[in-house]
Amino acid sequence: MNKLRILTISMVAAGSLFAGDALIDAAKNAGLKPIPFDHKAQMKLVKEFQKGVTPAKAELGRKLYFEPRLSKSGLISCNTCHNLGMGGADGVSAAIGHQWTANPHHLNSPTVYNSVFNTTQFWDGRSPHLGDQAKGPMQAMPEMAITPKMAEERISSIPEYVAEFKKAFPQDKNPVTFENIADAIASFEAILVTPSKFDKFLAGNANALNKDEKEGLKLFIDKGCTTCHTGYNVGGGSKQKFPLMGEYKYANIGDFKGDKDGMVKVPTLRNITQTAPYMHNGAIWSLEEAVKTMGELQLGAKLTDAEIAKIVTFLKTLEGKKPSIEYPMLPSSTAKTPKPDAK
Amino acid sequence: MNKLRILTISMVAAGSLFAGDALIDAAKNAGLKPIPFDHKAQMKLVKEFQKGVTPAKAELGRKLYFEPRLSKSGLISCNTCHNLGMGGADGVSAAIGHQWTANPHHLNSPTVYNSVFNTTQFWDGRSPHLGDQAKGPMQAMPEMAITPKMAEERISSIPEYVAEFKKAFPQDKNPVTFENIADAIASFEAILVTPSKFDKFLAGNANALNKDEKEGLKLFIDKGCTTCHTGYNVGGGSKQKFPLMGEYKYANIGDFKGDKDGMVKVPTLRNITQTAPYMHNGAIWSLEEAVKTMGELQLGAKLTDAEIAKIVTFLKTLEGKKPSIEYPMLPSSTAKTPKPDAK
Repeated sequence: MNKLRILTISMVAAGSLFAGDALIDAAKNAGLKPIPFDHKAQMKLVKEFQKGVTPAKAELGRKLYFEPRLSKSGLISCNTCHNLGMGGADGVSAAIGHQWTANPHHLNSPTVYNSVFNTTQFWDGRSPHLGDQAKGPMQAMPEMAITPKMAEERISSIPEYVAEFKKAFPQDKNPVTFENIADAIASFEAILVTPSKFDKFLAGNANALNKDEKEGLKLFIDKGCTTCHTGYNVGGGSKQKFPLMGEYKYANIGDFKGDKDGMVKVPTLRNITQTAPYMHNGAIWSLEEAVKTMGELQLGAKLTDAEIAKIVTFLKTLEGKKPSIEYPMLPSSTAKTPKPDAK
Repeated sequence: MNKLRILTISMVAAGSLFAGDALIDAAKNAGLKPIPFDHKAQMKLVKEFQKGVTPAKAELGRKLYFEPRLSKSGLISCNTCHNLGMGGADGVSAAIGHQWTANPHHLNSPTVYNSVFNTTQFWDGRSPHLGDQAKGPMQAMPEMAITPKMAEERISSIPEYVAEFKKAFPQDKNPVTFENIADAIASFEAILVTPSKFDKFLAGNANALNKDEKEGLKLFIDKGCTTCHTGYNVGGGSKQKFPLMGEYKYANIGDFKGDKDGMVKVPTLRNITQTAPYMHNGAIWSLEEAVKTMGELQLGAKLTDAEIAKIVTFLKTLEGKKPSIEYPMLPSSTAKTPKPDAK
């Protein structure tokens, strides 16, 4: 009798959640925030995270993002490891850069999509925003391996670029600086946001998710995933200890142990279906295994296969529409352009 | 008196050439042919060179052209060495591919733009058309280093690709074959044609080139450059001995000596201003030096600096408008997709 009553109450409660509005409230209460579809509202939000984005900077940044001459070798661009056609990542375990060198800590390239919403950049969270972040990989030896001076010399030697920097940074006397190169790239990256049907749901359309997706979201909240994977980017807003309990099965791959306090950036889960392999060291190829692992190590929860499947069904709703990007035609080098150097 | 008469006659002759129509005739007589601007006429011409191009194949080919999973490592696509934003080439002396290996013969990547018009592909001209050519770099160890079997397995494991192959090759029972992968890529490459103001001139608009450009074209014909650099692609239609006379200053860079008879493909000169460095071994970075060298080695002509400048002025008119390319969103890998392998 008692058992039946409890069951009935649970079903009613679940029913009201799946009806929609209560689940929207629960998601909001868990800190999840919608990316607006409306362009104007979207740009307003983007500018809260990346100051000073302008169309001129973003347009220049589109070229620089695909610009291999910003690498020492002339062969690697931002898009090499953060491929806009591959969910904004590279699909390999550890990034490979200059001279085919793998990331020395065996770190996996995170997606560039929606990265503007991250208040922690890099796996150890050492950078607070994109404008700062972009300077890292350009200089890193196993990535693009260029010096700020060489980057400035390459770009300065190309008149079309100089003219475009003047337009994008009208207040600067000598606008072609490494700082502005990074700022333009960050401005382009900032507009790479991908609202999905989850955002329609969160913004109030209770029918935007189907029953299975709602069940997945409910589990995602109830199990505690939203403790860390929350905010606009369903992650990206904090660092956490990893693993919090137990032992990470692939801890032997690479030597990354987090920041000085052992804290690791919480990555976004947007477009997660498109950015395998997973974890900081790209050791897990299946999203199901990644969910299972995170449940065990961070929540102390032994998720059943059915629960994992439901959560993955929800995660699929975070696959957003990518902005249409015209592949940029880059201005030609001149006699003054420092030569590429693959060594 | 005699001298004056000759001078007068020369000036009259030159005058009539620069007037336009006579120079158009001279260019046509030298075998130069215009690429049509009109889309329908352009497609008709393209299909004469690359059989069976369809919109469905070209659209699939756009994805495959940018598809790094067609390389063993998952990091290199056709666009890596034939970068559509860089004049269709890579801007380095010798191509660098799998495991950062330079081309073993120190060969320079040719532009993909207008390559459909080449009846000789590769520097030794061993391939007659794009559909055949595309199979080479995918398999070559220092390029994309994939086996046909692995390429087929990667693509077959992705349902969105399988559906698109069925659409592009409706007559095939099992459309995901290495042959069809190459055919789709070639179909996309085939539409990458770039008519320029030179084509407007050649098609009858005598005012499309200015006086300096016409002087350059006249020299280009008179000095004999059109002996080899002719046809739709201002080259690409024959192989020639190189050097024909004298000694190539940079012969020590790489070991390429042409085909078994010492013959070398005549490259296109379209968009040549955007595809430095020059020559089969990418040893010359200045277009002026390249023109000078070719004059000496192939025509036995010691061109003056003024003549070289004029020819370069003409060559600039071959810089054509590139088709607008939307950067493709590639379908995600699945659990069945063979993993990338950087080794």
